[in-house]
Amino acid sequence: MRTLERENLFELLRTALEQGDIPKVRALAQTLHPREILDRWAELPGEYRYVLLTHLPPDHAAAIFANLEAADQAEFLETLPPWRVQELLEALDPDDLTDALQALQEQNPQLAQELIASLEPETRAEVEALSEYEEDEAGGLMTPEFIAVRASMTVEEVLRFLRRTAPDAETVYYLYVIDDERRLVGVLSLRDLIVADPRTRVQEIMRPDVVHITTDTDQEEVARLMADYDFSVLPVVDDAGRLVGIVTVDDVLDVLEEEATEDIHRLGAVDAPELVYSRSSVWHLWGARVRWLVVLILTGMLTSSILAGFERVLQAATALAFYIPVLLGTGGNTGNQSSTLIVRALATRDINLSDWPRILLKELGVGALLGLTLSAFIAVKVAVDGFAAITPVVALSLFLLVVVANLAGALLPLVLRSLKLDPALISNPLIATVSDVSGLLIYLSVARLLLS
Amino acid sequence: MRTLERENLFELLRTALEQGDIPKVRALAQTLHPREILDRWAELPGEYRYVLLTHLPPDHAAAIFANLEAADQAEFLETLPPWRVQELLEALDPDDLTDALQALQEQNPQLAQELIASLEPETRAEVEALSEYEEDEAGGLMTPEFIAVRASMTVEEVLRFLRRTAPDAETVYYLYVIDDERRLVGVLSLRDLIVADPRTRVQEIMRPDVVHITTDTDQEEVARLMADYDFSVLPVVDDAGRLVGIVTVDDVLDVLEEEATEDIHRLGAVDAPELVYSRSSVWHLWGARVRWLVVLILTGMLTSSILAGFERVLQAATALAFYIPVLLGTGGNTGNQSSTLIVRALATRDINLSDWPRILLKELGVGALLGLTLSAFIAVKVAVDGFAAITPVVALSLFLLVVVANLAGALLPLVLRSLKLDPALISNPLIATVSDVSGLLIYLSVARLLLS
Repeated sequence: MRTLERENLFELLRTALEQGDIPKVRALAQTLHPREILDRWAELPGEYRYVLLTHLPPDHAAAIFANLEAADQAEFLETLPPWRVQELLEALDPDDLTDALQALQEQNPQLAQELIASLEPETRAEVEALSEYEEDEAGGLMTPEFIAVRASMTVEEVLRFLRRTAPDAETVYYLYVIDDERRLVGVLSLRDLIVADPRTRVQEIMRPDVVHITTDTDQEEVARLMADYDFSVLPVVDDAGRLVGIVTVDDVLDVLEEEATEDIHRLGAVDAPELVYSRSSVWHLWGARVRWLVVLILTGMLTSSILAGFERVLQAATALAFYIPVLLGTGGNTGNQSSTLIVRALATRDINLSDWPRILLKELGVGALLGLTLSAFIAVKVAVDGFAAITPVVALSLFLLVVVANLAGALLPLVLRSLKLDPALISNPLIATVSDVSGLLIYLSVARLLLS
Repeated sequence: MRTLERENLFELLRTALEQGDIPKVRALAQTLHPREILDRWAELPGEYRYVLLTHLPPDHAAAIFANLEAADQAEFLETLPPWRVQELLEALDPDDLTDALQALQEQNPQLAQELIASLEPETRAEVEALSEYEEDEAGGLMTPEFIAVRASMTVEEVLRFLRRTAPDAETVYYLYVIDDERRLVGVLSLRDLIVADPRTRVQEIMRPDVVHITTDTDQEEVARLMADYDFSVLPVVDDAGRLVGIVTVDDVLDVLEEEATEDIHRLGAVDAPELVYSRSSVWHLWGARVRWLVVLILTGMLTSSILAGFERVLQAATALAFYIPVLLGTGGNTGNQSSTLIVRALATRDINLSDWPRILLKELGVGALLGLTLSAFIAVKVAVDGFAAITPVVALSLFLLVVVANLAGALLPLVLRSLKLDPALISNPLIATVSDVSGLLIYLSVARLLLS
């Protein structure tokens, strides 16, 4: 995709920026897709970014602006010339506009209020309506710029209406049919319209029973519906069934990526679902990581107390201590595997909470098989090391620990889900720590029992 | 989304199936979206599934069939009545058809050859062309059913052409403009077409410089392009620049989910990127998990040899042994965090290989800060436990281990990427095991040094 020719265009743009040749900058920037500029945004010095956002045509500048980080957006709104800020605000889609103004609200509430007051009444109403919704629900993802028609219109009338309004709508490929109360009653694809006789009425070709979501549908649910049904747009209705917006698939691609990042970070005990590595300072990274590590070290300290409590057992057979790291490590690894599988299967809706008895049985079976396999390996090692006396202790303990850690890894995410919490909140390191504590208790109790 | 009304429809369908009332089954099934039937597919007994695939209208049956597992598809192709198999094959999109026949090829090569031979020549040519491409590249994702027009056509001619061909194409929202050699020279959205004067020529309103991919573009790259550029369709060209297919966004949603699952499973040391939990037997799960666990336990056994080697140090200060689990656990947790962050940042293209010097510096800083914080906690604990003599040993060792494990977690994924391997191949459990081994060496060497 990034061909040499396109790279050269970007280099020409950079040269024009260096020379301050604004007409050339405008001409070159327009031959590039906004995304091609965004891909190299981080490489551009601050003053060139400023020049680009000031002098590009408003639509092009808005397409770049909409994809910047919230903090950068707020900064540009504060520093760009007022006429340009007005042009940008008018060129943004209402959903992007709302996001930008909400970000500015946190940083500079006074300017945010001024800008909102300066919007055209219709846009202001849209922004205010959109601000009401949660960011991670359909209401926060949707745009109010859809195309709605009446069931009694003819295909010809609709086409004429489209020619007038299409340039403003975010997508024209689905037209929604509403009644007098603006309730959603049908859907019509542009394809249906194109192939129909111009005199046909909408009601004859529309599909009733529209798959739709409500303003409070969770964004993860929205993403899943789109992936499952192969939809590129979903209509959003309010409590009264009135059509209030549409969610398009491009918003959902970002949601899927965010949700996966969130789960992966949580599984790795990083306490910052939305952290962007390249833009995080050392201090920020420390903050995102230290809390979990402190919780885990405090929990892990239990192990030293357990060992101190069993000091006599350890002194009776000092070789017991040699196998503590490998036993605990194996328990942690096993628990990590089962929690990983269950967290991901819950996230992709492959399994759900009501399947727990089946999961319990399955994991008992898998845990027992894994325990047997791994015990055989450790038994050979201990025997070869020449500690025949403790071989049964180590092997039996490992078997029990693998079964326990495996069940803990599989069941803890289910417990969280049943408490309506995110199953990925049980990070793999937490399961490893739990397995360390229970592993030591198992090992030393078995030793005391078998060796006394 | 799943309303009571829709649930009732499904229950009525089930009742009709029980009563063997085929006309009613057909009528009810058509009021449901294929996805609504698929969502409950697993609950339906085998004979009802067979009835549905036999008696639904071909398009509807094909929409369900296309979303079944490969093994189920092959089974239905073997058992459904031949006339129905023909109808199904004709109703499938070429990309889904190719996937189904490839799956059948593995299970029943003779039937697969017969079915391919029975296809209409045009379809057979499409299937044979699609079979050439790798499954995880654009060629394996694309469909050849796009709409291509010539630059010299007028808008009116295109619309007439569309009315004739639209029902067959997978998407009509983008029309591609090709020259005499079928090379891609422009793109036109249906929206552009609708708002244009009917007498305009395509060349006047088409956009040249079409963002496109080639048949061998990796599917992850395709997904990222769509997410970055907000495209719902991408055209695919061959080596000669000829337009050969399109990839639509619905295929890419599935790719994003698969890729995230693959990374998550690998991070959790599950050796089966595509494993679907609910459909895996106990034996299958055991197989997907045991290999990594065995590798890890064999590596982990190094720890017992290290401990045996340092036996004298341990006997001189028995309290040292009490802190082994908490030290090693903390090292593993730290390494897990940094590898999680780096693997995900590489996957989302937030960072790339050339950033390694910056990452190294950043992680040295973060590791040192985390090491200082965590050492303070452990020093207090050891002192409170009454082992003042070994407090400096434990605290210094933890600091060093945290720095080392943190760097290992951050750098190993980068090393893998530089070897053109998947960075997620370094699973978190492997990093924990590496950290166990190096942690013990650090701890016991520091002890020998400071206590002798």
